[in-house]
Amino acid sequence: MAPSVRERILAAGLERFHALGYDGCGVQEISDTAGVPKGSFYNHFKSKEELAVAVLEQYAASSQREILLDANLAPIDRIRRHFEFCLARHQQNGFDRGCLIANLTAESSTAVPDLQAALRSDLDRWTESLAAAVKAAQEIGQVRADIEASDLARFLVSSWEGCELRTKLTGDRGPLDDFFKMAFALLSNVGPHQL
Amino acid sequence: MAPSVRERILAAGLERFHALGYDGCGVQEISDTAGVPKGSFYNHFKSKEELAVAVLEQYAASSQREILLDANLAPIDRIRRHFEFCLARHQQNGFDRGCLIANLTAESSTAVPDLQAALRSDLDRWTESLAAAVKAAQEIGQVRADIEASDLARFLVSSWEGCELRTKLTGDRGPLDDFFKMAFALLSNVGPHQL
Repeated sequence: MAPSVRERILAAGLERFHALGYDGCGVQEISDTAGVPKGSFYNHFKSKEELAVAVLEQYAASSQREILLDANLAPIDRIRRHFEFCLARHQQNGFDRGCLIANLTAESSTAVPDLQAALRSDLDRWTESLAAAVKAAQEIGQVRADIEASDLARFLVSSWEGCELRTKLTGDRGPLDDFFKMAFALLSNVGPHQL
Repeated sequence: MAPSVRERILAAGLERFHALGYDGCGVQEISDTAGVPKGSFYNHFKSKEELAVAVLEQYAASSQREILLDANLAPIDRIRRHFEFCLARHQQNGFDRGCLIANLTAESSTAVPDLQAALRSDLDRWTESLAAAVKAAQEIGQVRADIEASDLARFLVSSWEGCELRTKLTGDRGPLDDFFKMAFALLSNVGPHQL
């Protein structure tokens, strides 16, 4: 089935925001990319901001965060597989584009309050799912228990964003390899090679 | 002595880039903020990109990274004081503005190669100074020695950027408090409270 007009606009928004940033593209350019008249855009979205919120929701929904809650996997493996998925997607999109969430965060301001609120709750929901896996890992001794699971999770999410951001400059996966090495060294309380 | 025209343009560029982002403001707006005619701008800078590179250099030069090399301080204290300075400056600028370096990184692309190169070398130089302090701390047993100093330093710089970025959404210092707790837990190999 051919994608609906709404789906085409969403896909074009994702692609253009990721490539050019929020301020770097307008409704006209997104409509052109979607191959729809600008008037059609406004039949589906009130504004560029409303589209950005919808793009973010779709991006989050396709982030396979359910891995973090998969009881068939050991908790520490859920955490690793989750970030491996993030890395694979990032690699597929091209390192030079950075992270959609980080890019939108950097450009967000009080001028786009709905987008800011959506980014905030998305990072909070991501942190919560990760914290659940960290807590499960703590309970069976796979992760250090002297730091709150939610504190560890919140920091890992922020760090991941920073590492993804840096790949824009290096053009390679180096900063994400750093993340894997250091995140698991932090989660362990006895040094990375014993984990 | 009154600031020179060049200094006024630099100050206006720093302020506008930080508040609005790179794509969010133009040469006209920066010239207006500086209170100089647009023609004057081009007497001092070839382009907005050249100004951004100069703003970044000035920002880095005022980042007190020399603390990291101060032989009068214990190495672990150099690291802590350095990030305390970063936090104080960030607080002064207002959390909602995020980090100038992270914001410019998020907006940078191959369309602004000189800015990308300047960001890349700035983060590399920052990483090198931090790695020197980490190495000195490793040599006297203040920091775990089972991970290369440069690997730890590179990750800490990326993480800091991610945590600064997240303050744009929280509007408070929470993500930076996370950084302090987790960075020092990572540097220690025996858990944060024993450090």
